[in-house]
This record gives sequence, structure tokens and C-alpha cells, in this order.
Amino acid sequence: MTAVTTDRLIAPHGGTLVDRTGDVPDDLGSHERVTLTSRELSDLDMIAAGALSPLEGFMGKADYDRVVEEMHLASGLPWALPVCLAVDSAPTGDRVALANEAGTPVAVLEVEEVFEYDKEREAESCFRTTDDAHPGVARLFAQKPLYLAGRVTVFERATPAFAELARDPAETRRIFAERGWKRVVGFQTRNPIHRAHEYLTKVALETVDGLLVHPLVGDTKSDDVPVGVRVECYTTLLDGYYPPDRVLLSAFPAAMRYAGPREAVWHAICRKNYGCSHFIVGRDHAGVGEYYGTYDAQLIFDEFEPHELDIEPMFFEHTFWCNVCGSMASTKSCPHGPDDRVFLSGTKVREMLGEGEVPPVEFTRPEVAQVLIDAYRD
Amino acid sequence: MTAVTTDRLIAPHGGTLVDRTGDVPDDLGSHERVTLTSRELSDLDMIAAGALSPLEGFMGKADYDRVVEEMHLASGLPWALPVCLAVDSAPTGDRVALANEAGTPVAVLEVEEVFEYDKEREAESCFRTTDDAHPGVARLFAQKPLYLAGRVTVFERATPAFAELARDPAETRRIFAERGWKRVVGFQTRNPIHRAHEYLTKVALETVDGLLVHPLVGDTKSDDVPVGVRVECYTTLLDGYYPPDRVLLSAFPAAMRYAGPREAVWHAICRKNYGCSHFIVGRDHAGVGEYYGTYDAQLIFDEFEPHELDIEPMFFEHTFWCNVCGSMASTKSCPHGPDDRVFLSGTKVREMLGEGEVPPVEFTRPEVAQVLIDAYRD
Repeated sequence: MTAVTTDRLIAPHGGTLVDRTGDVPDDLGSHERVTLTSRELSDLDMIAAGALSPLEGFMGKADYDRVVEEMHLASGLPWALPVCLAVDSAPTGDRVALANEAGTPVAVLEVEEVFEYDKEREAESCFRTTDDAHPGVARLFAQKPLYLAGRVTVFERATPAFAELARDPAETRRIFAERGWKRVVGFQTRNPIHRAHEYLTKVALETVDGLLVHPLVGDTKSDDVPVGVRVECYTTLLDGYYPPDRVLLSAFPAAMRYAGPREAVWHAICRKNYGCSHFIVGRDHAGVGEYYGTYDAQLIFDEFEPHELDIEPMFFEHTFWCNVCGSMASTKSCPHGPDDRVFLSGTKVREMLGEGEVPPVEFTRPEVAQVLIDAYRD
Repeated sequence: MTAVTTDRLIAPHGGTLVDRTGDVPDDLGSHERVTLTSRELSDLDMIAAGALSPLEGFMGKADYDRVVEEMHLASGLPWALPVCLAVDSAPTGDRVALANEAGTPVAVLEVEEVFEYDKEREAESCFRTTDDAHPGVARLFAQKPLYLAGRVTVFERATPAFAELARDPAETRRIFAERGWKRVVGFQTRNPIHRAHEYLTKVALETVDGLLVHPLVGDTKSDDVPVGVRVECYTTLLDGYYPPDRVLLSAFPAAMRYAGPREAVWHAICRKNYGCSHFIVGRDHAGVGEYYGTYDAQLIFDEFEPHELDIEPMFFEHTFWCNVCGSMASTKSCPHGPDDRVFLSGTKVREMLGEGEVPPVEFTRPEVAQVLIDAYRD
């Protein structure tokens, strides 16, 4: 393989792409073992791959406090959400083995610090609520009482949900560079892509070199469309309607936190590590229920200095097909009224698909509708 | 009127919006008189209004040389094209009156310098050709042999071609601020807007707060569509298809130089003074004949440091309606073939319009076609 320079791409967050993969230590058997939750394992694997650069492990108290209070790491670099490992008690040794849910050790952590944390404060700052009906808050409140901090070395990577779509930041960067892309926009989704979001991605693509369709394949709520069905929707849509040399489909291995605005910033920073110079932030990004205002996930970017994040957010309004425009549009680009717009509620769409009915072509591509109809039928 | 802060808008080029308007001097009658060409008058009026900030007058040799050689002013600020006043001989006094084509004095220039210039060098650097079939080169070669430099004070502003669309940078900035816009994209055009360019402007608008449709109403080639017809096309299109609170139509009083790539940069800098944070650069921007490569006017922006211009160019490819996509698209966003695309050559469109025939709705809005048909009929 010829070496390809990735110099033209945006730099990773903090300047260097972290690699925390390594070999199994000889004395692994002597380490105390900590079993990680699914969300912690997802964080661990992302640290290993550099997706959370500059983090080299689970956060210490100085980073944690400043992130919670000020959305910055202790170094001054922007960061939006805690990446912490919750434990019941301080380990006795200076190294612990981190095990997956099956109990198999996958990494070693060099113990740096164990500290107490205030769940109410973290919930209020990061989720803007302490209501335990919020799935992220519920998860936080159910956590063990101490945070264990330290650098990690991962010797067994997680098995990806979709092996053919699993690409570490170093690999997406290599692909972008090989294709000669410099400006790349990332699109985060946890839903099938209908016309409205196809429009966002294409609008964004028009002004840059390439598009990374980066669906989240980590844990989501149980009422989200199953990841297998979603991936089939993505490949079907991309095959039919996107130029293959301008788009890359790859999986984003993060677990949803449903932290709305803060998660939008965190998602943007992660995508910077994957090589994206731009990131799409629509309405209600990473939201859940009624906890966040429609535009909160866009407004939060104003809390950073211009270019402080380096990756450029691209904000979008509500989009739809307008019969008078004869095109997709948004409330920003279309002056016509609600009656001229093709709008279907999520409930209505699920109802149609459940009955094997194809929604209007202005709402969803027929090929994508068919994938969903087949899935509902199974 | 309540004061509105324009602080949230992009700063003018060089930091301060220049105002070179002023009173008629008492001793005007004693000044030697220099009559300006139409292009020089257009430059003069733009200097007066701050559209060419930080320029306060016609360029001296230090600025001129560095602009021609390195696309920067002597101060180090980016600048793309000479803004000079050609004269036959050095004036005797330290002030001269600048007169319009009717011979009426409209401004005073404080003589700072008179210098010889190399027309071949200016042509080669700025137009990338010394072929006098190029309209900009022809104009340059026909110019008087010396450049007269100095700060100007304009006491009689030019009568705008379209008074209702004439807005100085201070006014567009005030309007942007009143509307709460921070990020504004400027669109330069010297043609009627068909669907292809409507698509560009709307794609650009989707990611910012507002759109400035800024047609050039200064001198153009005689085979361009007359400005009156164009303005009617713009108002018709905007009335029917753009949200009034998201778009402003205003005239750009510059004369075309047809300098392609360098003029694209110059156009962007001017729009920054009008308050635009973004500027659309399509294919063949400000080009003429076959003198420039299709993407030269986009590639030239790479010659500046990132954020050096501050205003962000937005580059676009060839756009069209695609029957398979069922939407407007570009070669970047559509994978389908030429047969699926609605394409009409300029010649074909003029032919259809001349025969009173309305082009397909996928090519041009029927209301705009009607304006053009009526104009061809007259």
C-alpha cells in the first residue's frame, strides 16, 4: 500500500490521534478485575481507537470537574461529557484488568485516582435535569458510587456490531486522504434516512468534498429502529442516490447518552477525530422526550470561541418536500404554507409501513420504504 | 430609529468600515480636473461607501505592486485586484477634482503619488493573459499611461442604476443586524437566476442565517442580459420562492473586470464589507471566454492562509434537475447519468425564450421565464 498523507485533513482533537491498543501483559492474571457496563465498554473501545482523542483513559477528577462545570478539560481543550468508569471501591493494586460483560479481560488500566462524584450535579450540568425518567439520568443514578481514573491499554478490541462498517479514525482518515478529500462533513443518525435527512446531507455535501454517513450503532433506546434494519436502509439509500466517490458509510460505535446539547458537541469532537471538518447538527440532536429546546443543541456551540472546536457545525432547520417549490426545502428556504408541504408524523409513517403501505416518494425513497416494510413484516 | 449593534457580524476588511463621503471644498474651482471612466467612477463610489475598505482612495505604488505580485496590500492584508486611477500626466497641484463622464466634479483627490505601471505585467498577473481580445485586458491596454494615487473625498455620490436596490455596506449591515442575522451568505450574479442558481443560493442559505442576493449592476458586456430585465427576474423569483425574512436583494455597484479567479477573491472581500460571512463561488466565476479553467476561481482561495480572508467561500459544482433523484442536484450529490438530467444550453434557452416558449419548470421558474419572454418580445 502506498503511504497517503492525511496532513490536509483537520487535525485530531488536541493535535494527535491517540492509540491505546497494546499487548496482553504477562502478569494479567494477578490484576484485580473490574467488569464494565456496555456504555463503559463502548467508551473504552473508542479511547483505544483514538475516537476520543486526546483522552488516553478514563477521566481523573481535574478533567471531570472542569468538563462538568465548564465543558473543557483541565488542559483548556473543549470537551462536553464525562468519560468515566464507575466502581464500587478503590482497587488495591496499581493496575486493574478491565473485563467485558462476559467477564473476559480486554484491557488494563493504570490506576491514577479514585474519586467520589456528585450524581445530582453531573445530571444537572450534563443532562440539564435530575429527572430519573430521562434514560441518561437513570443510567447515571444507577451507577456505582466512585470513579476510577487512569490510562488504559486495550489488548482485545470489542467485536463490532457491523464488521464491514467498523472503521477506526485512522482508517476513515486514510480513506478520506486517498480520495483527495480535505473538507468532510459528518452526519450522525440513529434512524433510517428519509428524504428530509437525505436533503440535509446533500446540502452539506454540496459545499465540501465528501460526506461521512456515520450512524450510531452502540446502545440506543429499545424503541429506536434496530441497527440491522437501519444499516440495510443506509446501504440501499446510498447505492441508489449518492455518488459512491463522494460518500462513505461507516459505523459510529458510541452508545447514546441522550444528553442533547452537550452530546451534540461531544459528537462533533469525536467526528473531528474521524477526520471530519464539518458536522451536521439538526433539530433536537441527541435529545429525548421534552428535556431540551428544539435548537438547544445548536445554541450550545455559541458557548465556544469561534474556531475553538475547529470542526465547523452546520445547523439545519425542519426540512420537508414543498409542492409549490417542487423540491425539498426548509422553513429557511421556502416561503409557502403548511398545506403545501408533505409532512407525516413518525406515528403515521410507522402505521403505514406496518400495513405494508409505501409512504409518498416525497417523504421517503421507495427502496428504503420497502426495507422497512419487510422489517415490520418479519 | 433604535440603534442596532452590528457587532455580531463579520468585521469589515481591515477592521473598520471606511467612509470617504464629505463636503464640497470651498476652493473646488481652483483644482485641476480629472475625468474618470465609468469603471473608475464605480470604484470611486465604492471607496466612498466603504465597499472597498480598507482603501481610502486610489492605490499607491507600494500597494499596487504587492497586489499585482502577491495578492496582498503593502500592509499584508489580502487584496486581489488593482484599484487605480489612470491619467495622462502628473497634476500640478496637491489636490485634483475628480469628474464624472458628464464633466461634473464629484470628488476631490489628495495627490500622494503618480507612477508608471507595466500594462503587460498587470495583465499577465491579474488576467492571466495579455490577449487583448479579453475585455479586461483590452480596457487595461487602452488606459492612460500613469496611475494617480491618493485619498479621496466624494461629495456627490453616483446616481445608482436602481435606486430602490442601492444599499451601501453600512445599510446592508444595519439590515442584517436588525434581522438578527449573524452568518450571511452573499451571492454575486450578472444573469437571471434559473433553478440551478436558485438551488445554490438555497443550499447555502440552509446553513447560515440569511442570504444577500447581490447582483452586479455596474458595467457588463453588451451581450449580458440588460440589468433592468435581470432585476425584474430577481424580484419575481424572490417574491414567489424565497422567505422574505431570510433574503435581501440589493445591488452591487461594481463594474465587471472579467478577471476570473482574482475577481472572485475581490468580490468576496467586497461582500465582507457588506457584512457577508460567506460567499458563493460557482464554476467560472467572473470568467469570460476560455481564459480560465472551470475551477480556477475556487482553487485560488487555497493561496490564502485558512481564515486569512475571514469571509468563507462556498464552492459549488455544476447543478441541474435530476429526474431520478426527483430534485435539484450536482455532480457531487447525484450518481445518475446525463440522460436523467434536465440540461439546456444557454443558446437553446435564449432560442426558446425568443420564440415565447417557456422552458421546463425543472430548468426555470415559469414566472421568471415570462419576464424574459416579455423582454425578448419588446
